[in-house]
Amino acid sequence: MGMPLIVQKYGGTSVGTAERIKNAARRILETHRNGNSVVAVVSAMSGVTDSLIRMARGITGKPTDREMDALLATGEQTTTALTAIAINSMGGNAVSLTGWQAGIRTNDIHTKAKIHDIVPTAIREHLEKGTIVIVAGFQGHTSSGHITTLGRGGSDLTAIALAAALKADNCEIYTDVDGIFTCDPRIVPAAKKIDVISYDELLEMASSGSKVMQSRSVEFAKKFAIPFEVRNSFNNNRGTLVKEEPVEKVAVRGVSLEKNQAKVTISQVPDRPGSASRLFGVLADTNVVVDVIIQNVNVAESGATDISFTINKDDLEKVGPGLESAAADIGAGKITKRDGIAKLSVVGIGMRTHSGVAAKLFEVLSKGGINIQMISTSEIKIAVIINESCAEEAARLVHKAFLEED
Amino acid sequence: MGMPLIVQKYGGTSVGTAERIKNAARRILETHRNGNSVVAVVSAMSGVTDSLIRMARGITGKPTDREMDALLATGEQTTTALTAIAINSMGGNAVSLTGWQAGIRTNDIHTKAKIHDIVPTAIREHLEKGTIVIVAGFQGHTSSGHITTLGRGGSDLTAIALAAALKADNCEIYTDVDGIFTCDPRIVPAAKKIDVISYDELLEMASSGSKVMQSRSVEFAKKFAIPFEVRNSFNNNRGTLVKEEPVEKVAVRGVSLEKNQAKVTISQVPDRPGSASRLFGVLADTNVVVDVIIQNVNVAESGATDISFTINKDDLEKVGPGLESAAADIGAGKITKRDGIAKLSVVGIGMRTHSGVAAKLFEVLSKGGINIQMISTSEIKIAVIINESCAEEAARLVHKAFLEED
Repeated sequence: MGMPLIVQKYGGTSVGTAERIKNAARRILETHRNGNSVVAVVSAMSGVTDSLIRMARGITGKPTDREMDALLATGEQTTTALTAIAINSMGGNAVSLTGWQAGIRTNDIHTKAKIHDIVPTAIREHLEKGTIVIVAGFQGHTSSGHITTLGRGGSDLTAIALAAALKADNCEIYTDVDGIFTCDPRIVPAAKKIDVISYDELLEMASSGSKVMQSRSVEFAKKFAIPFEVRNSFNNNRGTLVKEEPVEKVAVRGVSLEKNQAKVTISQVPDRPGSASRLFGVLADTNVVVDVIIQNVNVAESGATDISFTINKDDLEKVGPGLESAAADIGAGKITKRDGIAKLSVVGIGMRTHSGVAAKLFEVLSKGGINIQMISTSEIKIAVIINESCAEEAARLVHKAFLEED
Repeated sequence: MGMPLIVQKYGGTSVGTAERIKNAARRILETHRNGNSVVAVVSAMSGVTDSLIRMARGITGKPTDREMDALLATGEQTTTALTAIAINSMGGNAVSLTGWQAGIRTNDIHTKAKIHDIVPTAIREHLEKGTIVIVAGFQGHTSSGHITTLGRGGSDLTAIALAAALKADNCEIYTDVDGIFTCDPRIVPAAKKIDVISYDELLEMASSGSKVMQSRSVEFAKKFAIPFEVRNSFNNNRGTLVKEEPVEKVAVRGVSLEKNQAKVTISQVPDRPGSASRLFGVLADTNVVVDVIIQNVNVAESGATDISFTINKDDLEKVGPGLESAAADIGAGKITKRDGIAKLSVVGIGMRTHSGVAAKLFEVLSKGGINIQMISTSEIKIAVIINESCAEEAARLVHKAFLEED
């Protein structure tokens, strides 16, 4: 084909109305007219997936997974057709493809299928004729011909997997923000768009509240070393390039803040094998997602220790009699629950080599009079649990100290 | 498999709301629990197809056909999934299949594709496991994997074609009326449901305004000799069985009335070859559908004749300068247009052998003081063009004379 191949992905807000679909269509067509082959992955128009879910719930509280997939897949199919219609009405030449038409094969785990492989025969045929291909994101089909969906963030996954399968020259993820920021600009006005970030850094940012992309898609891109750029579909600004390891290994790439957290402490947990697994087994059974866990080494003679963990505030009500009876069974003490907690993380690949990030972080918070309740670290992240009431102020202080030096 | 196989079809109003989908699901499940294999074809929920068309028109006045098919196909796919969800929630075991999953292969004429053949491998596999199969009506796919739709009445076609391909024991077309009536009950309160009607009779009734089913589906059923029953999805009454030639060949099976007609007369058309074809060529070019055409043999010495034809009143505005200049070209006289016309037809296979139907019809109308403007006959139908103002009264008189004798 010779021409560079660009895979683009347009999220739900970028195709949320007829006008926005036309806007995306213009951008796709422009990319094509600039001498590129283009495959565009589109999501369902914003609100459509929720309205389909409501329709199913109007029939039963427990719709079967296979049928939910067949139902939800119509959302993206609608957008692909409308986008192709828009491009064609502008004098371009586009076709829409569903997941099965695009050859996106998955395993058979309905509602959260994994992409198995992609057989892009049809896509290649269309591209070779100079046709723009619009692919339904979020969906695929099994080898037995069932329709599957890929779960939350599935359209990003479709785009990245297609970029890998087609050996695309570029993969652009269009959304309604300019890219990944050093911190949430609504909290830290001085936050700047990050030009380049590594997969690992973005993963740590994502797991710390910067929800531009689902971790699964980033992990997939990392696994297959597919660089991609997060861009704004409503302007022409360059976005954030996400790739292997950026040349410039700054100590701190960004600061991320997750509010609406809660902390649960189980006191006097006997220091015996199996205690912790019993407690966290109960939480897993009730679908409580536990984030940071802290267990202090037992220093007293009591043979017992306190275990604290953080969860999303919304999950707090699920922490109830089940955990209490488990705690009683293993002979632990009382359980205390507290919301009004936030998690502040600093993320940067440079931490691996730059020492002193932790020390500087603690110093900044201390000077700001902000008390640290828990600390959790990974190789490229330091997270602290603090009071929610001072969380935004803490984010501004930390951002200033690490990212506004000049 | 051994078990009888029943193909059912539920139209848009029969699945128009969550409650109605549940109602259809209960009926499907009951049929299955009575010891039958069931394949149910469903239409888009009423209003959905129109709203999809509006979405496309919100983007452009001329959406491309291939993409309209991809767009519209989502309507039926949504209903199949919701219907399967409903059945499963009632303890049944159902799967939804799109046109391509059901193996419905068509030619590549988008928006009005013809069914080419059906490869019901997937359907058979599901049926053999005792699963109820819900198939999206109105859609198929080409051998190159494009999604196609079958045009108006396409879901009936899907059901009848599936009944043929699967050698079904029964085919039931569910709608929101009890079946085919001897006349429109809103006009003739004495109208009765017809128990058995032949394909040809139904075709003549359909082309005369009794729009329970599109002619195309009835022709298809006739071609493959598939009997089917038109039934009401909102009650348990027996419907109307449509089949080859009913045993009882009544002279008149039904009376059908088509209002909102208009009449156009072109006076003094020269009696030369090519005159008529020139005039009707112009009408065809402007998409005017001509119904009854009358040309009286020229009895005068003028070498010219009057030609009259009827059309739908809505098409009257399309009859304009084009026809006038064609008339002028061939040396014809003036054109007169008139609305307020209706067509009354009596239909019955027995007319072939029972003589005197026409005479009786004319006598009834004459006694009622109703003037006949035009007459048109086929082997099993006599149609008269009368004033719209007395059309309903005429229908009651004719119905009484032919169908209320006892």
